[in-house]
Amino acid sequence: MFRACYPLKSVRFYCPLTVKSLYEQVHHARHGPISIDGWIKSIRLLKRIAFLDLQDGTSVNPLRIVVPLISNDDVQFLKNLKTGQTLSISNAIWQDTNNREQPFELQIKNPAESIKLIGPVSENYPLQKKFQTLPYLRSLPTLKYRTSYLSAILRLRSFVESQFMLYFQANHFTKVSPPILTSNDCEGAGELFQVSTNQALNSSSYFGKPTYLTVSTQLHLEILSLSLSRCWTLSPCFRAEKSDTPRHLSEFWMLEVEMCFINSIHELTSFVEATIKQIISACVDNQSELLPKQFVSLQEDDTSSTLSVDQEKQQIERRWQNLVNKKWQTIAYTQAIDILKKHHNEVRHFKYEPTWGQPLQTEHEKFLAGEYFKSPVFVTDYPRACKAFYMKQNSTPDDTVACFDLLVPEMGEIVGGSLREDNYDKLCKEMKERGMNKSGELDWYVSLRKEGGAPHGGFGLGFERFVSYLYGNHNIRDAIPFHRTSAGTIDF
Amino acid sequence: MFRACYPLKSVRFYCPLTVKSLYEQVHHARHGPISIDGWIKSIRLLKRIAFLDLQDGTSVNPLRIVVPLISNDDVQFLKNLKTGQTLSISNAIWQDTNNREQPFELQIKNPAESIKLIGPVSENYPLQKKFQTLPYLRSLPTLKYRTSYLSAILRLRSFVESQFMLYFQANHFTKVSPPILTSNDCEGAGELFQVSTNQALNSSSYFGKPTYLTVSTQLHLEILSLSLSRCWTLSPCFRAEKSDTPRHLSEFWMLEVEMCFINSIHELTSFVEATIKQIISACVDNQSELLPKQFVSLQEDDTSSTLSVDQEKQQIERRWQNLVNKKWQTIAYTQAIDILKKHHNEVRHFKYEPTWGQPLQTEHEKFLAGEYFKSPVFVTDYPRACKAFYMKQNSTPDDTVACFDLLVPEMGEIVGGSLREDNYDKLCKEMKERGMNKSGELDWYVSLRKEGGAPHGGFGLGFERFVSYLYGNHNIRDAIPFHRTSAGTIDF
Repeated sequence: MFRACYPLKSVRFYCPLTVKSLYEQVHHARHGPISIDGWIKSIRLLKRIAFLDLQDGTSVNPLRIVVPLISNDDVQFLKNLKTGQTLSISNAIWQDTNNREQPFELQIKNPAESIKLIGPVSENYPLQKKFQTLPYLRSLPTLKYRTSYLSAILRLRSFVESQFMLYFQANHFTKVSPPILTSNDCEGAGELFQVSTNQALNSSSYFGKPTYLTVSTQLHLEILSLSLSRCWTLSPCFRAEKSDTPRHLSEFWMLEVEMCFINSIHELTSFVEATIKQIISACVDNQSELLPKQFVSLQEDDTSSTLSVDQEKQQIERRWQNLVNKKWQTIAYTQAIDILKKHHNEVRHFKYEPTWGQPLQTEHEKFLAGEYFKSPVFVTDYPRACKAFYMKQNSTPDDTVACFDLLVPEMGEIVGGSLREDNYDKLCKEMKERGMNKSGELDWYVSLRKEGGAPHGGFGLGFERFVSYLYGNHNIRDAIPFHRTSAGTIDF
Repeated sequence: MFRACYPLKSVRFYCPLTVKSLYEQVHHARHGPISIDGWIKSIRLLKRIAFLDLQDGTSVNPLRIVVPLISNDDVQFLKNLKTGQTLSISNAIWQDTNNREQPFELQIKNPAESIKLIGPVSENYPLQKKFQTLPYLRSLPTLKYRTSYLSAILRLRSFVESQFMLYFQANHFTKVSPPILTSNDCEGAGELFQVSTNQALNSSSYFGKPTYLTVSTQLHLEILSLSLSRCWTLSPCFRAEKSDTPRHLSEFWMLEVEMCFINSIHELTSFVEATIKQIISACVDNQSELLPKQFVSLQEDDTSSTLSVDQEKQQIERRWQNLVNKKWQTIAYTQAIDILKKHHNEVRHFKYEPTWGQPLQTEHEKFLAGEYFKSPVFVTDYPRACKAFYMKQNSTPDDTVACFDLLVPEMGEIVGGSLREDNYDKLCKEMKERGMNKSGELDWYVSLRKEGGAPHGGFGLGFERFVSYLYGNHNIRDAIPFHRTSAGTIDF
């Protein structure tokens, strides 16, 4: 049995059924016997019946196949099947089950004829035990996404990206693809990857100048926003940092947004709050397709979670609902320092003493969001010296800039943004003070303020951090299929 | 005046009006005076009235603003405005025009009060003349997307991407992000970019082995498809080719798809045809938002097009409709060679003689699609030696593989795909014959055939080529905001 994949005027084409498509048919009339392919997730033989759970990675739900064991041949055939093998099933009959969790199953009468083994597994196929640790799975890069826990995070990521796409399109943003290769070296910061060709390791030979992998597409997005008013991208960015933590990747995807005609940082934070709430709201609406019914979160060590399956799932759903329904907090950096100082002096010492003029440390960020506000919180208006040269200077006398970081409980910063300095003279002065643009390499950037400039601003959201935060797993390495970190994680 | 950008349950946020949002309101009731920001596209002073066309890059249509010239001050004020300047307009009144092309305009009573100049332009602001050549615009990377011709192609690209997203999601594909950094050197092909860190130009120091920018994500997608059944990506790819042609970029985006449980190349070509027709069908449905009403295509040289504005637009619309409505052709490579040979011998010599066993040249591809079939055409089943090691060998005795290239008129190849060899022994033998995998660096890849393998296949579509083909411009450099080619095109 095949089905048309998509309604289309002039063509019909056919592609195989998926497990997801069977779940979509639960409330529809059934036609004839069903053929479906997938991998064995588990197999259980009772006396007169066998339960075969098939998965194909398209759905959070496995497909329950019931095989009555009539002859000894049936028993022997089923006993030879192994977890991980690829099967092609035909002549399966749909059976409603009146079970809310599993509203249907497929029944197979003659297993030796209807079940065809199309892909074997080796004797040592490693995905056997029910509970594996995440570090163990990460050592199996070709197989780890066959676990429900890790495949669900990839599907969540895909869903979240699609919702951003719809949201930005509805709001008249153009999705753009700024360059990965750039000659912008961010003023010699040490954390760049440099690019050269095989033939000539002297990198200036191919593009005529030293070429790097982008660390942020913002400066290019500013150009495009000054033509398109509103643009966004989801693009790989690269940092050759030595930080080998669960929050850092050498190659990560960043969602960056730039928009014109905004004049206050609070316009920007209200936009960010509405944007993220909209995305999470779509997750809430689709949570049964995003979170496995049997949700078991895997751990960094050998302990399995102390929560029950239902508690775990409810915990994530509650997190999503809280994020959507509660008003997020906003606080100026100066006030945040006061709160942190008070806590530092009166309750518990931080490792780093909170000091006006210094960046917030991760421990400070986690305290503010996780303990003090127990909510996402925008910290705005940082000291000028803490932040990048392009941020718009506030007109207040406290030498701050119109920027924000969005901090969330447990994770810390996930979004950072600012208004951009649109005053040509102020921008030039700031760059000169910082010793920048000595050979005119950023003239193109400052010139944007002279040719139809506009008040504008934007933000960047670390995509793996965001997906990981939503999924409640605390290591962003699982939110990207093949992670690259400074710990030498390129297998292929 | 502000408006809510998106219906949302619990929050309302405000962002400025866009030109696009005004066009969306044409059939709705109007409320009070309107504020809007944008750039001057053109300005025309008559005796008692001035026409100010504003653009903000969100719409193919500019916004006509009508200013009655009552006093000398009004005239002087309008005379001082210049193309390219950024304006903030307030107190504008909506006027229906009963004009199908331009169903409304905004009227401003008191220009000196209602028009605020918020961004100046220099004396030499270059976007003055109506017709510019594309090479000239490409020399203005910070400004070129303010032309309607080039901003429309970026919006088209964004729209096309969103439609792929919706289509693949509806068909149960997971969008994935395979790595850009890889140690897979494609067997020493000379066209790779190598990556190293600033501190240590010895590239093995950071990731522990030589690291390259990906030329195709296919091998990684194969891993993921064997967990998710269906996956796709739109991801930057890199080729350090020396080809400096309108069809080549050193950095380009490739849409790649991989799916399991397909068994014939014709299942794959029918899927590709349906997919692309679906996307173009969405373009047809939205053509008034994608193609400027005053469509003037810019040229590589100083001549303006010989076609009228309407003819040009109709030409693109006809191209789209033809692509959707006609059945595409399919032909085996061996037949294609016969056709080419006949033409070569009887009609007109090609530069390269068509020869079985040799790859098709661009001239051959363009002849087949553009002259012979006058249609997109799938050429299938190329000789094994012409194609990559991973393609599935046909069971026919002619030593061909189950693959296809999709050729389109004018552009040549835009999609290439194949079934992948899923037989472990055949794959190993083929790699050995080609002298590959000598130190086991592709063991992970062949092992996929041993651990729950499945028949699978996929394809790659050059995204800039596709967008450029749809838009009818013949240089893919305009379909990506900042193009990188071997001709030293990194300005910043």
